[in-house]
Amino acid sequence: MNTLPQQLLFDLPLRHARLQQAMANANADALLVTLNNNLIYTTGTVIRGWFYLPLNGTPLIFYRRPLDLPQRLPGFTTIQISRPDQITAALQDHNHPLPSRLLLEGDELPASEWFQFARIFTTTELLNGSTPIRLARAVKTPYELTLLRESCRRHAAVVATFPSLYRPGMSDLDLSIAMENASRQAGSLGLMRAFGGRMEIFMGSVLCGDNADTPAPYDFALGGAGLNPTIPIGPNNTPLRSGTTIMADVSGNFTGYISDCSRTYAIGSIPDHVREAHQLSIAICHAVAQAGTPGTNCESLYNLAIDLATQAGLAQHFMGYSQQVKFIGHGLGIEINELPVIAARFTMTLEENMTIALEPKFVFPGIGAVGIENTYVVTPDGMEKLTICDESLITLTP
Amino acid sequence: MNTLPQQLLFDLPLRHARLQQAMANANADALLVTLNNNLIYTTGTVIRGWFYLPLNGTPLIFYRRPLDLPQRLPGFTTIQISRPDQITAALQDHNHPLPSRLLLEGDELPASEWFQFARIFTTTELLNGSTPIRLARAVKTPYELTLLRESCRRHAAVVATFPSLYRPGMSDLDLSIAMENASRQAGSLGLMRAFGGRMEIFMGSVLCGDNADTPAPYDFALGGAGLNPTIPIGPNNTPLRSGTTIMADVSGNFTGYISDCSRTYAIGSIPDHVREAHQLSIAICHAVAQAGTPGTNCESLYNLAIDLATQAGLAQHFMGYSQQVKFIGHGLGIEINELPVIAARFTMTLEENMTIALEPKFVFPGIGAVGIENTYVVTPDGMEKLTICDESLITLTP
Repeated sequence: MNTLPQQLLFDLPLRHARLQQAMANANADALLVTLNNNLIYTTGTVIRGWFYLPLNGTPLIFYRRPLDLPQRLPGFTTIQISRPDQITAALQDHNHPLPSRLLLEGDELPASEWFQFARIFTTTELLNGSTPIRLARAVKTPYELTLLRESCRRHAAVVATFPSLYRPGMSDLDLSIAMENASRQAGSLGLMRAFGGRMEIFMGSVLCGDNADTPAPYDFALGGAGLNPTIPIGPNNTPLRSGTTIMADVSGNFTGYISDCSRTYAIGSIPDHVREAHQLSIAICHAVAQAGTPGTNCESLYNLAIDLATQAGLAQHFMGYSQQVKFIGHGLGIEINELPVIAARFTMTLEENMTIALEPKFVFPGIGAVGIENTYVVTPDGMEKLTICDESLITLTP
Repeated sequence: MNTLPQQLLFDLPLRHARLQQAMANANADALLVTLNNNLIYTTGTVIRGWFYLPLNGTPLIFYRRPLDLPQRLPGFTTIQISRPDQITAALQDHNHPLPSRLLLEGDELPASEWFQFARIFTTTELLNGSTPIRLARAVKTPYELTLLRESCRRHAAVVATFPSLYRPGMSDLDLSIAMENASRQAGSLGLMRAFGGRMEIFMGSVLCGDNADTPAPYDFALGGAGLNPTIPIGPNNTPLRSGTTIMADVSGNFTGYISDCSRTYAIGSIPDHVREAHQLSIAICHAVAQAGTPGTNCESLYNLAIDLATQAGLAQHFMGYSQQVKFIGHGLGIEINELPVIAARFTMTLEENMTIALEPKFVFPGIGAVGIENTYVVTPDGMEKLTICDESLITLTP
């Protein structure tokens, strides 16, 4: 195994500084990271171990595996231990005081591990650090942006090939499998990470016709019935019939950073008002992106989208028909559902270098979903689109 | 959405009875299930909600979504609520006393949700129910076996086609993508669930040559470097070269129940002693399966495998070379890593209808891994093999 990329090694201290700022805001003097998503953020890779960050100074990386971690992370303090109860002694060996207020990943760390840390850090107050960590991660560092831009570029390139994968007679599942395969061949790592143990996603979902209006028990914009009650989301073997639409929402993970890009295809002829709704989705993306400058309230962007949908008389089709979700976009990066959320009553303000997917979609009974989804980065001039490929409603021949 | 299958509806009470036995052993008077893996076990599907089981009597299913859950689960008590703090009032409405000792999924439930339940169940002692639940789930019910048998049958059928996917000039990744695609086309649901937040798996791993000896930070038998530091497991773009082996370990999930089946291919000519190790893997599977009757200690099966490897002078190649793992098999079902584990110092005894994957594998530097993996069910006569397809070391032409 080789040293991790130089750019990553130079970037990690910027991430640690962001976390230290979040720690200061939470009045904490240390952070202990256990879970893969945050280990990737703090060390650049998945390790079997724990990442410890004091409020001031540099981190200590406790590890069991990989054994060559010191060579992979030159310049960082790596300490081999086999059990978490060795952490306190190791801190003292390295002249670190035991923390007074320690942030743990409370919204994801299993309760039994929290209680184990409570037995280890007997004089320490344990605090839920999940939201501080998520807020720190919402604003991307330069190398994170490099990785997300690269994922978006490669993602858009493969999405541009999706229409060529269509064959008459296919089902939504057939087309989904072809799109997954094209994504893997183009370098998608396949695995899509999500925050929160209840979110489950394979590579994405391809929803045709009324399956786009089937609610799922997950927090995705659109659901789909799925193939099996144990994974009730996504394609359900709907034949691709003339007069319906295909919403292809296959996520990209080409660099460890996840990009979102949905496109819609019409099979044969669909009504003009449905085509107009697709154009409105493009217009909403454009308007929200233009308005999305640093300092803008997320809720106001949501309301802007709702207003545009309402003015067009399409409010009841917006973000679902039989069941509507109350968001039109979400942060993304190491996970597909990061902060912020562009949602009703979500009052966080945008900051430069936040990365956000916008997905204003419309659902029409008997026809399907239309609209697009793109990934953006917040710049001083608004949101810059990173997933650049044809957004029009491409017609496929039945 | 339709009613869940009749067989499932008749099977669920058997699962609830198994859980109630585990609750009695743990001296608990109720169980509250929150997470998808256990919701699938207890309700047959993923819901947004909570499953409540008293020690005696029938369960209450609290749900937010799907809205048609009552129609999907006829005969079960379903109660629509929107927040977990409504559970206690709903219990009282349905004439259930508040529990004294309540099992929660402590090894997986996020700490913040545990603390939320502690605020809701103020007079109740909360206990970690993860191990009792996993023990209950280790022995499969009749319909669970039907689903796992079906997954194994379909899985073995697609594995039988794997040699035909090979083309000279491919990399391990190319072949892996082809195998994933064949699996999806044959009906694999794609998503593979694992117990514990740190385990991550896409569809499986195809390891060629020395990549089979690269340790990963996950608890899989063999690792592989992977393509990216954010997912350090699996193929790493190794060219498929003559004189090396390919270990294809692509998991199957055709029914919500996960099956494991690995096969090995030699590219061109490989040394006789490596071929003999492959035959020994088959022999170890056979010996362990024959010895694996109800009442057998898991550790004794592990020792049997170790003894056979040692007698053949292959101990240092067994279950890894540069880093060896201390297990040769594992339970599986809704998740890929269930109980029991066939491991050193794991003293649980087998019971009828446990389902177990055996994967005695050997690693040779410069050549790769050899051996097989099959999925079995424990019967009174030993372990019955469910993944039936050619086990020999098939030679591919470079």
